[in-house]
Amino acid sequence: PAAPSALTQPAVGIIMGSDSDLPTMRGAIAICQQFGIAHEVEIVSAHRTPVRMVEYAQTAHQRSLKVIIAGAGGAAHLPGMVAALTPLPVIGVPVQTRTLQGVDSLYSIVQMPAGIPVATVAIGNATNAGLLAVQMLASHNPELLQAVQTYRQELAQMVQDKQTRLSA
Amino acid sequence: PAAPSALTQPAVGIIMGSDSDLPTMRGAIAICQQFGIAHEVEIVSAHRTPVRMVEYAQTAHQRSLKVIIAGAGGAAHLPGMVAALTPLPVIGVPVQTRTLQGVDSLYSIVQMPAGIPVATVAIGNATNAGLLAVQMLASHNPELLQAVQTYRQELAQMVQDKQTRLSA
Amino acid sequence: PAAPSALTQPAVGIIMGSDSDLPTMRGAIAICQQFGIAHEVEIVSAHRTPVRMVEYAQTAHQRSLKVIIAGAGGAAHLPGMVAALTPLPVIGVPVQTRTLQGVDSLYSIVQMPAGIPVATVAIGNATNAGLLAVQMLASHNPELLQAVQTYRQELAQMVQDKQTRLSA
Amino acid sequence: PAAPSALTQPAVGIIMGSDSDLPTMRGAIAICQQFGIAHEVEIVSAHRTPVRMVEYAQTAHQRSLKVIIAGAGGAAHLPGMVAALTPLPVIGVPVQTRTLQGVDSLYSIVQMPAGIPVATVAIGNATNAGLLAVQMLASHNPELLQAVQTYRQELAQMVQDKQTRLSA
Amino acid sequence: PAAPSALTQPAVGIIMGSDSDLPTMRGAIAICQQFGIAHEVEIVSAHRTPVRMVEYAQTAHQRSLKVIIAGAGGAAHLPGMVAALTPLPVIGVPVQTRTLQGVDSLYSIVQMPAGIPVATVAIGNATNAGLLAVQMLASHNPELLQAVQTYRQELAQMVQDKQTRLSA
Amino acid sequence: PAAPSALTQPAVGIIMGSDSDLPTMRGAIAICQQFGIAHEVEIVSAHRTPVRMVEYAQTAHQRSLKVIIAGAGGAAHLPGMVAALTPLPVIGVPVQTRTLQGVDSLYSIVQMPAGIPVATVAIGNATNAGLLAVQMLASHNPELLQAVQTYRQELAQMVQDKQTRLSA
Amino acid sequence: PAAPSALTQPAVGIIMGSDSDLPTMRGAIAICQQFGIAHEVEIVSAHRTPVRMVEYAQTAHQRSLKVIIAGAGGAAHLPGMVAALTPLPVIGVPVQTRTLQGVDSLYSIVQMPAGIPVATVAIGNATNAGLLAVQMLASHNPELLQAVQTYRQELAQMVQDKQTRLSA
Amino acid sequence: PAAPSALTQPAVGIIMGSDSDLPTMRGAIAICQQFGIAHEVEIVSAHRTPVRMVEYAQTAHQRSLKVIIAGAGGAAHLPGMVAALTPLPVIGVPVQTRTLQGVDSLYSIVQMPAGIPVATVAIGNATNAGLLAVQMLASHNPELLQAVQTYRQELAQMVQDKQTRLSA
Repeated sequence: PAAPSALTQPAVGIIMGSDSDLPTMRGAIAICQQFGIAHEVEIVSAHRTPVRMVEYAQTAHQRSLKVIIAGAGGAAHLPGMVAALTPLPVIGVPVQTRTLQGVDSLYSIVQMPAGIPVATVAIGNATNAGLLAVQMLASHNPELLQAVQTYRQELAQMVQDKQTRLSA
Repeated sequence: PAAPSALTQPAVGIIMGSDSDLPTMRGAIAICQQFGIAHEVEIVSAHRTPVRMVEYAQTAHQRSLKVIIAGAGGAAHLPGMVAALTPLPVIGVPVQTRTLQGVDSLYSIVQMPAGIPVATVAIGNATNAGLLAVQMLASHNPELLQAVQTYRQELAQMVQDKQTRLSA
Repeated sequence: PAAPSALTQPAVGIIMGSDSDLPTMRGAIAICQQFGIAHEVEIVSAHRTPVRMVEYAQTAHQRSLKVIIAGAGGAAHLPGMVAALTPLPVIGVPVQTRTLQGVDSLYSIVQMPAGIPVATVAIGNATNAGLLAVQMLASHNPELLQAVQTYRQELAQMVQDKQTRLSA
Repeated sequence: PAAPSALTQPAVGIIMGSDSDLPTMRGAIAICQQFGIAHEVEIVSAHRTPVRMVEYAQTAHQRSLKVIIAGAGGAAHLPGMVAALTPLPVIGVPVQTRTLQGVDSLYSIVQMPAGIPVATVAIGNATNAGLLAVQMLASHNPELLQAVQTYRQELAQMVQDKQTRLSA
Repeated sequence: PAAPSALTQPAVGIIMGSDSDLPTMRGAIAICQQFGIAHEVEIVSAHRTPVRMVEYAQTAHQRSLKVIIAGAGGAAHLPGMVAALTPLPVIGVPVQTRTLQGVDSLYSIVQMPAGIPVATVAIGNATNAGLLAVQMLASHNPELLQAVQTYRQELAQMVQDKQTRLSA
Repeated sequence: PAAPSALTQPAVGIIMGSDSDLPTMRGAIAICQQFGIAHEVEIVSAHRTPVRMVEYAQTAHQRSLKVIIAGAGGAAHLPGMVAALTPLPVIGVPVQTRTLQGVDSLYSIVQMPAGIPVATVAIGNATNAGLLAVQMLASHNPELLQAVQTYRQELAQMVQDKQTRLSA
Repeated sequence: PAAPSALTQPAVGIIMGSDSDLPTMRGAIAICQQFGIAHEVEIVSAHRTPVRMVEYAQTAHQRSLKVIIAGAGGAAHLPGMVAALTPLPVIGVPVQTRTLQGVDSLYSIVQMPAGIPVATVAIGNATNAGLLAVQMLASHNPELLQAVQTYRQELAQMVQDKQTRLSA
Repeated sequence: PAAPSALTQPAVGIIMGSDSDLPTMRGAIAICQQFGIAHEVEIVSAHRTPVRMVEYAQTAHQRSLKVIIAGAGGAAHLPGMVAALTPLPVIGVPVQTRTLQGVDSLYSIVQMPAGIPVATVAIGNATNAGLLAVQMLASHNPELLQAVQTYRQELAQMVQDKQTRLSA
């Protein structure tokens, strides 16, 4: 859908522990671009740059951010640690791993203790993390809510087109 | 924390497939009450009342709701199906099961296909679903954002008090 | 085996959420063709075309269908949701996934709550879904029951032939 | 629902490997009774009475049976072996186990090779096995199909009643 | 090691459900050849040739066989069913599968109920099944027992040789 | 069955890492007693008495033993280490654990590398370990082989008796 | 064993996220007391007191600590985050959880990325965490190394005593 | 970092069961080289050379070794058995396997009973095993502790450089 509103300050922060996570995280970036949401992309590692992570998380809500998307794999601590340091909602993307296929990432992200939630999406599904961020913003933005509806109609139309080709 | 704002129209819809899920879901209700968020609680079953579920989900954004929390166990389809029918963000709570301990619920809720995200929290952790809903609202409400910060400070203080007792 | 009866109205509905599931689902189509069972093939997505899914499922028994085969992967809601909306028996095919290899699909399909069963087959085994549909029809059709017996004898003969080659 | 038809010859065979499986399998018996389906209940062990199992399975379709429900736990071979010996559809019930909670039963039943399907239901859910058998019969019996619809409406009403009590 | 005794009647029966299991099962054949144990190799399918399987298993101890090695994958019923039909010890080889990697095979083979054991080896490790059969025979054959010892010394020597190359 | 032969020298060694494993391992002892097999029972820990374990395993075949049954839980190294040190066949019993329910025990015992097999039985099923030992001895002892057959007939009769009571 | 050396400054830091982890972590405390190792015990939560955790970890090596033991459950981030902030070796204790039995804790602790190791022990086994800390200190302390040897001899003696009682 | 100290006697023993584990274990060797730690590399198999393993482990602390790194896959007994035979700390590296991807290795290594710990690192992560060994030595060596700090700063710088490139 065409961008319903041009947010000029980054509303979504997209972070990941390593540039090796970037291929996975591009799905979230693409959704922000598609919906015209201003966003920032940063490499922030919970384990290799813990102090920088603390600073990033603690100041996020004082800047323009409304939601943070964090991707990590293995003992994936980035989403949960950022969530512990910001009052903003944090979306976690479990990155697929070679040995345990992302089950380790999923458990490390989703099984947060009471008090500090992380909104977890499917393993490797950064597209859905982007859409979830858009929907959070859309709850308070009728124009964006309409764009989500349009996006859904386009998904339905794609299924319909496949059906048409199948029947042909 | 004291309620930062008294929302008079339900902003959060809390739904579950059966009243057997109610003990789990009370955590979400308690958080809404604690933060003074108007909410509604409904039994809506994806499998036993599918038509009612469709109606509930399709009209949610036309009413006052900003976010939906859905709890379900086993082949847990409620969160994902509601997410497919509303542009609002949907938070899924995997309810613990007797045989597979909730791994079935978790996989059924979190592994959504691209296009339709569900914000999944830990197995059985409806408290965090409530907090996530509050944080989504707080992104656009400075008073509520401050209440989240206060809640976090209280969590930290509880840890500090335990430490004090331990050292005594 | 040669077709034992030429059913002219579709008796088996074969549905899937995406054309990416088609390579898996061809096994079911092939069995229907092999046994001469009239069938229909449709792309129906629980998440992308939920309203169309409801219509498809609610009207299935009013048309000529006797059984529905539904394939889906990941948070695989299609078989269970269709089962919730039709009195016909529904066979679920868990489609293999890249990250969790179809365990997510299997749990999402098989772990249905009391009241709404889905007849689940092995991960990726749409051939068996087709055979199960044939067997359901054959229970009430002696000619078709004989065809199933013949099919079984052919399976046994294939094993015997392999044994002969091995011993040669 | 009231029994829609009084079948006088057993149409459903309910078998299990041990009387220790009987508490689980009662769910299937109860459904047959509720829908007025004549049925038989037998202890047939794949491992302790293999010859008797072969006889039971090979003759099932020559008697009045239309479908077989088989429950087993652990290395659960009964459903698959019976399926290999009868052209009738076989429904498998994975019985919960103490050590692996029924995952072993589930895998042993559902992962059948191409050629010999078993219609698998949720771990421990013999109620759904009974319902699936009823639905297979109902496909060819309008009266029974209506009874299934009535059963579904009663399920929906139970949810509605719970909602009413919750709102009270 | 050189063959310690030339058994002229097959002492070990090596069976599998399909010739697709043959690449896995060659490990057992090779060990029998290496130790000079007369053996037979058969394709016997629990699901596709159940009657032939019953005959094979029931007569095994009346022929010259002392132990049976059975390989199978997925819902792997062959080892357990043969074990139920023979008083001879049965060794089960879980064949690796594409979707669940052999965990389904392992659980289907190892989790046998009290009364009917299957001696299970590692997933895909037919070499060890062969060695286990040799060791069972060697318990009653000093010459063969010495051959097992020699085989072990050769294994140790191979490790020592690798160490020597590493240090070079 | 009555003891078919009174072996006066221990033919079966039953060992375990701790007396906490004794309740599990009693099943193997009972079978030896039932079949009149002389046996010895020892506490031998791979981790707490490694030197004693080496001695026990290295000398086993020089004494009267024909087979060793070893039970262990968690990182269960006893069966595999004993197998590495004796040419006799070793049967491993995975003892159920509190945290991982015995999956850790099972994997630690069954997944042995090529060269050193362990004949693994179901989690916690020492009865089957005892029976497997009896069957290994019975391969070379017609009287004992007949006793195994009798034992099987008694198992079948028990199922038949249950069926009779069920039908009553 | 009697304390081999009275360290007067805490050499081992034992931390945990909540006092609910204290019953598990007492095993580590007991070992330190048994070996006469000065130690400190603190409640430090990665998620509820992240800033305090950073301070604790960053200053640990500047105080007298030589090794840190950290216990946590679920999405267990404490051991890995502390490891990221100190050059000292960190031992992680996965605390058993109610839903996933500690598999989530184990994966969250052990699957650390290259660069930041955590020395992980068995689920719930803080005794071993304490022993591992003692052994790290003992590598550089002959008196303590002897105490570890004595402890091992006592373990062996306990097994021997059990064997004696069993044989009596 | 430049080597902080040139230890001339091997302080770290790096062992593995087979040269097929060498590609995995090179990560540990590289870290020792990078930090200038004298080390030895040996092929020692728990199952193929058990006697040699006992000797290696029993004498390790009498030579110059301060810590042992042991890598193994499948039923991975090497780390635990060596730990049972030495008072030195033992680090276990679960080597990835083809069938179970290293979950078997992980469980076999980490789930040690009380009394005999193994410091387990992530599946296949021998780099971290090397770093953990360095950190154990660094606890008692200020120069080496500083080298660890420098190594960490270099990790952080690498992340910073990636961020810079990303922003460019």
